[in-house]
Amino acid sequence: MDAGPRIAIDAMGGDTGPAVVIAGIERARRKDSSLHFLLYGDEKLIRAELKTHPKLKPAVTVCHTPESIASTEKPSQAIRRAKTTSMGVAIAAVKDGQADAAVSGGNTGALMAMAKLALRTMPGIDRPALAALLPTLGDQDCVMLDLGANTECDAQNLVQFAVMGSAYARTVLSISKPRVKLLNIGTEELKGTDELKEAAALLREADYLPLRFDGFVEGDQLSRGNLDVVVTDGFSGNIALKTAEGTARFVTDLLRRAFKSSLRSKAGFALSKPALNLLKVHLDPNNHNGAVFLGLNGLIVKSHGGANAKGVANAIAVAASMVRNDITRKIGDDLDNFRAHAFNEAAQ
Amino acid sequence: MDAGPRIAIDAMGGDTGPAVVIAGIERARRKDSSLHFLLYGDEKLIRAELKTHPKLKPAVTVCHTPESIASTEKPSQAIRRAKTTSMGVAIAAVKDGQADAAVSGGNTGALMAMAKLALRTMPGIDRPALAALLPTLGDQDCVMLDLGANTECDAQNLVQFAVMGSAYARTVLSISKPRVKLLNIGTEELKGTDELKEAAALLREADYLPLRFDGFVEGDQLSRGNLDVVVTDGFSGNIALKTAEGTARFVTDLLRRAFKSSLRSKAGFALSKPALNLLKVHLDPNNHNGAVFLGLNGLIVKSHGGANAKGVANAIAVAASMVRNDITRKIGDDLDNFRAHAFNEAAQ
Repeated sequence: MDAGPRIAIDAMGGDTGPAVVIAGIERARRKDSSLHFLLYGDEKLIRAELKTHPKLKPAVTVCHTPESIASTEKPSQAIRRAKTTSMGVAIAAVKDGQADAAVSGGNTGALMAMAKLALRTMPGIDRPALAALLPTLGDQDCVMLDLGANTECDAQNLVQFAVMGSAYARTVLSISKPRVKLLNIGTEELKGTDELKEAAALLREADYLPLRFDGFVEGDQLSRGNLDVVVTDGFSGNIALKTAEGTARFVTDLLRRAFKSSLRSKAGFALSKPALNLLKVHLDPNNHNGAVFLGLNGLIVKSHGGANAKGVANAIAVAASMVRNDITRKIGDDLDNFRAHAFNEAAQ
Repeated sequence: MDAGPRIAIDAMGGDTGPAVVIAGIERARRKDSSLHFLLYGDEKLIRAELKTHPKLKPAVTVCHTPESIASTEKPSQAIRRAKTTSMGVAIAAVKDGQADAAVSGGNTGALMAMAKLALRTMPGIDRPALAALLPTLGDQDCVMLDLGANTECDAQNLVQFAVMGSAYARTVLSISKPRVKLLNIGTEELKGTDELKEAAALLREADYLPLRFDGFVEGDQLSRGNLDVVVTDGFSGNIALKTAEGTARFVTDLLRRAFKSSLRSKAGFALSKPALNLLKVHLDPNNHNGAVFLGLNGLIVKSHGGANAKGVANAIAVAASMVRNDITRKIGDDLDNFRAHAFNEAAQ
């Protein structure tokens, strides 16, 4: 059997510590036995957890780190502790080539800052972006970025996000020419900020890129299943993603109340339960866990701090899929292409 | 019986013309027989519709206007036709004191531009904002503004929105000291844009205002029912509102699929139907129709272009409630108070 992707894991990241993380690793390895894991964190805690997962023994290497990053820690403080913390050393393993990707459920701001400092952005990328898959009514999920790495973005940043998001959709979702839209407050050309209008103009002209730019999209169309990549600044992206999560929970909470409201509806619920469980699976954030920092010279995947074992396993599967698809190289090729065209046009 | 609020109606606004609008008026008047309506639009069309609603006769005055604003029309073009269009003349009726409020289901950008030009902003308000009620899990809805009138906002704009939104919650929702939060991508003080951080600092100090400022809120908490007013710039507000609408529709679409997926779940649906209908009512956008432009010297309510008769009736009820609660004067008092304090502090 070929050696599969080597994934560095911040075992101390996440709200619940190594137990859930290691249960997630076991789950991921049941689906993909070629994976190897480098576990960073408190060796005693990790080894104690591993005792309950004896099958994992050949698949993991434990690396002790004396400290970990707190969820409340400022990124500026965190970066000073890169060499002693589970998060910092897991990122360093990617930089040094010991691991092909790192997964952490810790502090997002700290992860972003440390990853950027250690791995640096790819040539042609000014800022990395956080990308994830959104569930839709269609056959496939939709890639959305940036989800919060960059509060403010200019037109060039947005164009670079479009290139990176398309590479994601091409490799992981196998869509040869992804449909890309910019998130806006209207679909007419004159709507929105100057940055959005400029980014739209640039993307409309860049017809040599392996993507189909399709203008603007409003928030109510994100889950209709008729686009592959949504590009936005990190502020709006974060607002949209969290509002979608909150609204899905709101509707399912109302639904639960409705089913509990009478004996008759309780009976109806009992009958519908198998079908409703499919809905639950579709909406479970754990099944969409694993946001990727794109645009760095190395792969870093952010797992949700509150993810369960299934969620951690999903984040690991995202990382493995990115490694196997060699996404960093593909983004690099697209960017080279984009810059070569821009250079030729400027020279004419 | 006292004469109730006089509501100017843009009978040509909305996607379906006078038929739905007039059905909405009939519905509104069944609940509130003191209302009087001034109907602006194509007199022939309006009179033809009114024939099927003979009970409305004593409650309406029809005012012919030769033109109407198209949904695709640019605001800059629309304002030139203020004197000849149903939208423009309905707004003018508020300005002249013939009507206490105007309701339109037409082009939002045109309505905003025309209303601003005709009515002007209140003293102390730099920009008006579009506010509406969001459904929550709590006992009461939550006021959210701005929903798209201003793409970019500075800290002063956001503070003024907080004052206006609180006046809305105090008068219409009867909450004496509304809990106000700023929409952000994290709840820590250091998160978000400079404008948000500055607005938070200003609101934290303004403890003499009739509101309880409670820091930042993220998108996933908007519908939990633990806040009364959400303040945001119009870009993020529009993204959040539309994403919430889209996600609610997405989940109910999935639910419909789930119920249809087997005979067993179809039977479950039949049993649960009465309870599920309550959920449907709770989520129906028509029951939350009616966004208000706050901060103008006069009340303008935007009805959704696709609203049905129930939705139009709801927008009219919002307008009537605002008139009865004298919200424009109350916002004015709060702003005077805010400015007097700011002036005193500057003088010290």
